[in-house]
Amino acid sequence: MKVGIIGITGYTGQELIKILDTHPGFELVELGARLTETTPVGEVLPAFRHMDYKITPIKAPSDIPLAAEAYFLALPHSTAMEYAHYLTEKDKIVIDLSADFRFPDTALYKKHYGVHHFPELNDRAVYGLPELFRDKIKQSRLVANPGCYPTGIILGAYPLTRRGLVDSLIADSKSGVSGAGHHPKAANVFCAVNENLKAYKINEHRHQPEIKTILNTVSPQAIERCLFSPHLVPMNRGIFSTLYISLNQPASLQDVQEMYTEDYKNEPFIRLVSRDQDVETRSVAHTNFCDIKILANEWTVIILTAIDNLGKGAATQAVHNLNIIASIPETTGLL
Amino acid sequence: MKVGIIGITGYTGQELIKILDTHPGFELVELGARLTETTPVGEVLPAFRHMDYKITPIKAPSDIPLAAEAYFLALPHSTAMEYAHYLTEKDKIVIDLSADFRFPDTALYKKHYGVHHFPELNDRAVYGLPELFRDKIKQSRLVANPGCYPTGIILGAYPLTRRGLVDSLIADSKSGVSGAGHHPKAANVFCAVNENLKAYKINEHRHQPEIKTILNTVSPQAIERCLFSPHLVPMNRGIFSTLYISLNQPASLQDVQEMYTEDYKNEPFIRLVSRDQDVETRSVAHTNFCDIKILANEWTVIILTAIDNLGKGAATQAVHNLNIIASIPETTGLL
Amino acid sequence: MKVGIIGITGYTGQELIKILDTHPGFELVELGARLTETTPVGEVLPAFRHMDYKITPIKAPSDIPLAAEAYFLALPHSTAMEYAHYLTEKDKIVIDLSADFRFPDTALYKKHYGVHHFPELNDRAVYGLPELFRDKIKQSRLVANPGCYPTGIILGAYPLTRRGLVDSLIADSKSGVSGAGHHPKAANVFCAVNENLKAYKINEHRHQPEIKTILNTVSPQAIERCLFSPHLVPMNRGIFSTLYISLNQPASLQDVQEMYTEDYKNEPFIRLVSRDQDVETRSVAHTNFCDIKILANEWTVIILTAIDNLGKGAATQAVHNLNIIASIPETTGLL
Amino acid sequence: MKVGIIGITGYTGQELIKILDTHPGFELVELGARLTETTPVGEVLPAFRHMDYKITPIKAPSDIPLAAEAYFLALPHSTAMEYAHYLTEKDKIVIDLSADFRFPDTALYKKHYGVHHFPELNDRAVYGLPELFRDKIKQSRLVANPGCYPTGIILGAYPLTRRGLVDSLIADSKSGVSGAGHHPKAANVFCAVNENLKAYKINEHRHQPEIKTILNTVSPQAIERCLFSPHLVPMNRGIFSTLYISLNQPASLQDVQEMYTEDYKNEPFIRLVSRDQDVETRSVAHTNFCDIKILANEWTVIILTAIDNLGKGAATQAVHNLNIIASIPETTGLL
Repeated sequence: MKVGIIGITGYTGQELIKILDTHPGFELVELGARLTETTPVGEVLPAFRHMDYKITPIKAPSDIPLAAEAYFLALPHSTAMEYAHYLTEKDKIVIDLSADFRFPDTALYKKHYGVHHFPELNDRAVYGLPELFRDKIKQSRLVANPGCYPTGIILGAYPLTRRGLVDSLIADSKSGVSGAGHHPKAANVFCAVNENLKAYKINEHRHQPEIKTILNTVSPQAIERCLFSPHLVPMNRGIFSTLYISLNQPASLQDVQEMYTEDYKNEPFIRLVSRDQDVETRSVAHTNFCDIKILANEWTVIILTAIDNLGKGAATQAVHNLNIIASIPETTGLL
Repeated sequence: MKVGIIGITGYTGQELIKILDTHPGFELVELGARLTETTPVGEVLPAFRHMDYKITPIKAPSDIPLAAEAYFLALPHSTAMEYAHYLTEKDKIVIDLSADFRFPDTALYKKHYGVHHFPELNDRAVYGLPELFRDKIKQSRLVANPGCYPTGIILGAYPLTRRGLVDSLIADSKSGVSGAGHHPKAANVFCAVNENLKAYKINEHRHQPEIKTILNTVSPQAIERCLFSPHLVPMNRGIFSTLYISLNQPASLQDVQEMYTEDYKNEPFIRLVSRDQDVETRSVAHTNFCDIKILANEWTVIILTAIDNLGKGAATQAVHNLNIIASIPETTGLL
Repeated sequence: MKVGIIGITGYTGQELIKILDTHPGFELVELGARLTETTPVGEVLPAFRHMDYKITPIKAPSDIPLAAEAYFLALPHSTAMEYAHYLTEKDKIVIDLSADFRFPDTALYKKHYGVHHFPELNDRAVYGLPELFRDKIKQSRLVANPGCYPTGIILGAYPLTRRGLVDSLIADSKSGVSGAGHHPKAANVFCAVNENLKAYKINEHRHQPEIKTILNTVSPQAIERCLFSPHLVPMNRGIFSTLYISLNQPASLQDVQEMYTEDYKNEPFIRLVSRDQDVETRSVAHTNFCDIKILANEWTVIILTAIDNLGKGAATQAVHNLNIIASIPETTGLL
Repeated sequence: MKVGIIGITGYTGQELIKILDTHPGFELVELGARLTETTPVGEVLPAFRHMDYKITPIKAPSDIPLAAEAYFLALPHSTAMEYAHYLTEKDKIVIDLSADFRFPDTALYKKHYGVHHFPELNDRAVYGLPELFRDKIKQSRLVANPGCYPTGIILGAYPLTRRGLVDSLIADSKSGVSGAGHHPKAANVFCAVNENLKAYKINEHRHQPEIKTILNTVSPQAIERCLFSPHLVPMNRGIFSTLYISLNQPASLQDVQEMYTEDYKNEPFIRLVSRDQDVETRSVAHTNFCDIKILANEWTVIILTAIDNLGKGAATQAVHNLNIIASIPETTGLL
């Protein structure tokens, strides 16, 4: 299948190039970015100076050459929806890595991101978390690739959630800096991050409603108490989430472990970590894995999860989604 | 006042040298370490190669020259108590930075550290957290300097705790690597830590009973639910703790903020952080400050605290304690 | 071709597993390590917990099952030669990543590493730097994979060297910490490396004679002045070398650039960097590339090179060598 | 002596506040910055939230309240000279941390920085490297505080230089990121620096003419060959310079070491490092020290130096200069 990427100057776009360049099932035929002229990829992204790709200048959807059958959109939110609309009209498959189609309810989208101009298209989008929505993804032509934080948190809470056991959820997440994007700003300057740790946007981050919404779509009863606390860590990539889950009925540690084993034992990208090993972000770096470990004391279940925010939290998950739609083995190009 | 340090090869001992070398109220007259002969400090600690101090070889308490009036013990637990016993017998003031005198109950000490050989001395020790126990410290000759994690967590929970409002406490802490000591081991090798984050000893760390014990000494009712989750962060120093506190009766964010202001407004080393600023470990690096910020949603109070684990979490707090005992201005040598 | 790896607990062994696991031309059938019993790879190397490989306990060459046709040896020097001897006797192809077969002259080996027990085998070994010795490698059954520092430095100096233009060479190298191995020691503890930079073993490092020897095998006249200055940088991987080369006859910057273009234009893993771009270690991380940039002032040629010490400086170069021997496209599994 | 700082939002300004706040010989009475209104220092620099200083809005020299006797200027070049001119007219002492008065020759300044509007004032400025120009500094009212790179390099080359022994000098420097300033730009974003190393502006950096000029003012014969190669290292602070010096006449390692001992034995801030110890940036972090080690092979002298770019390379050296002018012990507030 011929594929294209629109938006390649950010970290996610670069990851997509790296994966798709060697993916045996896809042929990367188009790279687009907001440039003034056609440019060899190595001039914009020096790490790729050995590659022959040219970047097509794309300032509006109509600039897309349309030589591909499927497109990955690594664009800012609001912009992405315009491209998704245009491409689906042209009958292309779209994997959108922005937030534009992650909310079933466009009113909620509006509250956190802005006006949604394509509500009817939004109704056709599928939330691209394969472990939860594989069957829907398979039938889909428009996938809303999940946010990086939500990916690790939802996967960590899913088995308890779908069984209706979650009373409240606190997700204390620790993220590498690439999650904040590549545009220079005071908050991502080296000396402001290195040898430092801080929390930010606790209870106010836009991924909190995403987490709550998706968990509630799989929970038999409404989960009201959902708190998301992100922290910025001096490392390039990786998200570690520590979930504190209060159950609404007793369950032993062994009970909980069995639920996770049952739900995830056939998942190629979920690795349940045994009692004597650690969940660590370095173990999942540059992969599509989500590592999960289950702990508990008498009054709280503690779930530890780690993903690569640019991998399972973005680019590799996007490719996983297209693998599913393309009906090729799910791990193609990812293992 | 003439002071000495026993144990100077670890990170804490080095911090003590740095502070005491320029402290206008104390004269550093003895440095002791487990060496075979008297050695210039710069041979062991190259950063101090400009200093004239000699390190006295000390293999047993009786090797101490006793020229000082007060001693800082930066020794491993179990060893420290032997030195503390000897020095108090000689009528010296002791600030012990180990865990040996932190537990009022030696049975609890035994469970987590080992047999305590000096229970009667333990009864005379004071937990050296000035903001909670200033008056007792002033009268004391043996101070148990608090653990690094407990310092930031207890200070973060204290105003709610002493008012009997805490139902449960989750302390999710993120620590720099110096907290793990300077001895080489697989877990603190650079490549195992850099570009990595992991949790360790959740619900099993020896600081959990310390936190719980001290909070319960100031709480009017017993706090049973206390969970401590430490994480290792790729930075040298700093501890950031995110506390999730369930209250046993409603209190507004403003109510809570007023409690903290009331308790801490005259504390020279507590800085309450306003709504529009961040708590960050870099802001407290190399200081005795504990920065605290108060947040809340409808069902949880969230307290953010940051300290330097080698400063307020160890060496500067130790000096603060001796300042109090010596009846000199508390901030001497620390601001 | 069926391949095996002996020695998988170090960083290089792990890199080899990662590459060979997905290499389309090789089948990884044996992993050996100094363990007491057969062990799933994920128990020893948690990042590989999804893999099915078992590690065979190997304490002596005769423990090797010999199911593979070619072996990568990621063993300490001195040990490696025993295994290489045994395996070549069994008619296996050996890619040795230690220093044991890098010196044509075993007396020089002895001076820097110790006694060489297999001088006749040493005579049959080829120095595995494909850009210099491709034809010999193709005919070889025993490849001495180059040292990490020598790889980048020799490639940077080669075009001038083979033309007999080098009067003196200063190689100021900056290396990530993985080059120092994974065994815990005072020098690689996180807090000793992070926020720090130092030189070590200037003019005394064992890679200096390796660099000098190999350059002299391709230089028409003897190069006597060769100084190697390694530095330790707080990053996991990557070597950046800044070469200062005095020429024994004048050559313009353009002349020099043309020599490099001529020698390297068909090399798949050498990337010459243009004037307006930087050589950076991040651009070559996790790859087999060596990026090279040429500068000059009136009296010195300055060559900048960057490689990944675990990639082109070790594991990917080893695979490149076997690709050549196996007569498959050189970039197989590496691009 | 009452002192003021103009320009406090950059890293150097912050360091000055930290030092001067506790300096026993100076009283910090004015802090100025380009703000719109008088602002508590903690609102602009949260690490200083415990301090009572107010920042005066200063948009032009005439906004300075002039309550201080001496001023530190931590301003961009070109701007600094306007303030220096104004303040010296008002008979104030000025320690300028910009490049504006570092070049005796304003034509050279113009080539690298721009037009110099106060050549006659420039004639009265003294280059503030105390180890070379202590006597002149003592008589001065306008000090040009040296550049960070030049400080470590000139000190490393000075004893050989003033004896007329230097034929050529290559200075390969490795700097932490704070040297690049605090303004966000693509080159100092965390993910562009972390896990990366690169050279920049080799033979083109503006500190190269500064180094060459100052060395030539102390050299009996002209030094023509002077090459400066800066590199960016993933750490906050510290500059390590490796100097390769070709001598114009033979000198043994011992000879050279004796020259350095002779020149520096009474210098409070130069520490000569013995053969068995390392020069490391962490040993000089947050200090005014310059550590120096001397090595040699048969054809090159190798000098290693380390400083803190924000300390000896900027703020502490500036305070050292004012200590000298104020005729107080040179180490006041710095040890």
